[in-house]
Amino acid sequence: MDEFAGVTVNKSANIYFDGNVSSRKITFADGSVKTLGVMLPGEYEFGTEKAEIMDITTGELSVLLPESHEWETFKAGESFNVPADSSFQIKVAEVTDYCCSYVD
Amino acid sequence: MDEFAGVTVNKSANIYFDGNVSSRKITFADGSVKTLGVMLPGEYEFGTEKAEIMDITTGELSVLLPESHEWETFKAGESFNVPADSSFQIKVAEVTDYCCSYVD
Repeated sequence: MDEFAGVTVNKSANIYFDGNVSSRKITFADGSVKTLGVMLPGEYEFGTEKAEIMDITTGELSVLLPESHEWETFKAGESFNVPADSSFQIKVAEVTDYCCSYVD
Repeated sequence: MDEFAGVTVNKSANIYFDGNVSSRKITFADGSVKTLGVMLPGEYEFGTEKAEIMDITTGELSVLLPESHEWETFKAGESFNVPADSSFQIKVAEVTDYCCSYVD
């Protein structure tokens, strides 16, 4: 899937960590939401409300998921799941373009 | 206008200057295109093919437009035009969220 058709896009970006992470919310006709974002190299911590599926479009990063003691590396074409109401740490090795889906 | 409805969004971001500038292409039903992007503080030079209208959503930057000898500053809610087939320089003072429209 190279594009998402028939969606609504927020004009304003979500900007985190002084712009080193930014994303744009897209809403589908069925009301579901994704965010398309870019992360620059660095280390970040995020919190979730809903469970999330993070798809890596380009780039590379490592993730320390909740309840885990080992960093896992993910590259373009790979994805990882994060449980709801939790936090996870990320080390971005290369500029990473991602798509985050939220699971009800 | 806080959002753009009924558009197609490219999943992949356009990434420039090692991720310090990134944008996402959105295509409207009439075929017209905009890009929604974020620029981190820094100095950049861009080239245009079509004429462009740059709307600043948040942030602040200064621009040296073609044929101009003076830098002009633009903030949230302001916009500037760049002629087709030209280049322009930008100094980003604060993380800037922008919307670029292309003029046929």
